Amino acid sequence: MKDWYANFIEDGMITLPQKLLSHYKQLGLNETELVLCLSLYSFKQANVPFPTLEEISERMTISSNQCSMHMRSLIQRNIIMIEEAVSEDGRFMERYTLKPLWELLYQLDVRTIEMEKKQKQLEESK
Amino acid sequence: MKDWYANFIEDGMITLPQKLLSHYKQLGLNETELVLCLSLYSFKQANVPFPTLEEISERMTISSNQCSMHMRSLIQRNIIMIEEAVSEDGRFMERYTLKPLWELLYQLDVRTIEMEKKQKQLEESK
Amino acid sequence: MKDWYANFIEDGMITLPQKLLSHYKQLGLNETELVLCLSLYSFKQANVPFPTLEEISERMTISSNQCSMHMRSLIQRNIIMIEEAVSEDGRFMERYTLKPLWELLYQLDVRTIEMEKKQKQLEESK
Amino acid sequence: MKDWYANFIEDGMITLPQKLLSHYKQLGLNETELVLCLSLYSFKQANVPFPTLEEISERMTISSNQCSMHMRSLIQRNIIMIEEAVSEDGRFMERYTLKPLWELLYQLDVRTIEMEKKQKQLEESK
Repeated sequence: MKDWYANFIEDGMITLPQKLLSHYKQLGLNETELVLCLSLYSFKQANVPFPTLEEISERMTISSNQCSMHMRSLIQRNIIMIEEAVSEDGRFMERYTLKPLWELLYQLDVRTIEMEKKQKQLEESK
Repeated sequence: MKDWYANFIEDGMITLPQKLLSHYKQLGLNETELVLCLSLYSFKQANVPFPTLEEISERMTISSNQCSMHMRSLIQRNIIMIEEAVSEDGRFMERYTLKPLWELLYQLDVRTIEMEKKQKQLEESK
Repeated sequence: MKDWYANFIEDGMITLPQKLLSHYKQLGLNETELVLCLSLYSFKQANVPFPTLEEISERMTISSNQCSMHMRSLIQRNIIMIEEAVSEDGRFMERYTLKPLWELLYQLDVRTIEMEKKQKQLEESK
Repeated sequence: MKDWYANFIEDGMITLPQKLLSHYKQLGLNETELVLCLSLYSFKQANVPFPTLEEISERMTISSNQCSMHMRSLIQRNIIMIEEAVSEDGRFMERYTLKPLWELLYQLDVRTIEMEKKQKQLEESK
């Protein structure tokens, strides 16, 4: 039981931006796609940077075919990306990255802040 | 921009058990239901403990009717719960809680640990 | 035990920027002052936005007098701040905020990124 | 700036049990020792599982000699531990682990829950 607690603290938690949960629809994602992204993120944190379609779909209620379709669509719409990297022991490897998704979220934030500023200026100039 | 950074650190992140993302299917949830639960969790952390069906469905790609159906189902299957609480200014209030969900996750953990133990004992006794 | 697990997930974790741990010395903080800041942050997350000096020092290995000195110094050096706010039931209240600290951390980040850019340009222009 | 945001989300946050901040004194730690533990945790998350004394003390306001003394004391008091592991490319390596610390925290939790139960039973039997 004690071991479970230690593992839970060190590896058991995953940290997400609140904004992803409140704004995924605005980014053009549906629920299945959001969970797919979260799942890739979870694999990454568990040191599985390039899970197979079977590994991904196994955890989900969709088939590996549907998973493949969703993944392709997410890549085409530039939400997720495959990037090349060098592993610690010097081999080339591929991995999924959510950087495009975080970037969209960032742009959303910047736009929100700018709109709030303009709104405020408008109100003050009345 | 600086304010955004401060807010982001203090309120912008949400922390989840990894296991929820890898095992929601085993708990009988589909992707829409998982996102519904995550959304309630996100509302709670933003100090909105009892969002309306409109507030919940607005963020999602489902209608408020579908949202209502899913919520009722999650409550009947004892995944989420409505509990009564007393607010800081002394008024009675209702709020959603994910305690039943965390409990299911905990039981899954306990079972996994026990199975691994037995497996190990079996292997050692060979 | 199950309740403990649920509480642990919902309220038991605190999220910090890695950079605070690696760069507090560069921000002019010593270990006692860093823990003081972390402690205020922890109180905030437990809904105690304006703990007394006794409450703060009780958890620490310093006296409430020493705590008072450190707090005053942190405020004078603009690391922490006392701000006025309105509670949910409409009363005025004071609370500590770490916003100045997060701002310092943000400026550190911006400077690092700019220096890395210049470094890269220099190397490319050789 | 966008890259910074993505890195911040993916690697920039560190998650801790609240209880560590509120109860380190009860575990016999002072502020310097707590920060030392947090620092090891931060190194681990940045994939530096066995930092040198110089790397550790460099971030802190203590000398590498003092750091060495504190580390030895923490190991002797069974707060931190050095364990052997196998790296991904098959080499033996040493790394620090905070498992003993998490275990102490867990026992504190268990004891607190048991005491609260007894307290409740006492009150109910009156």
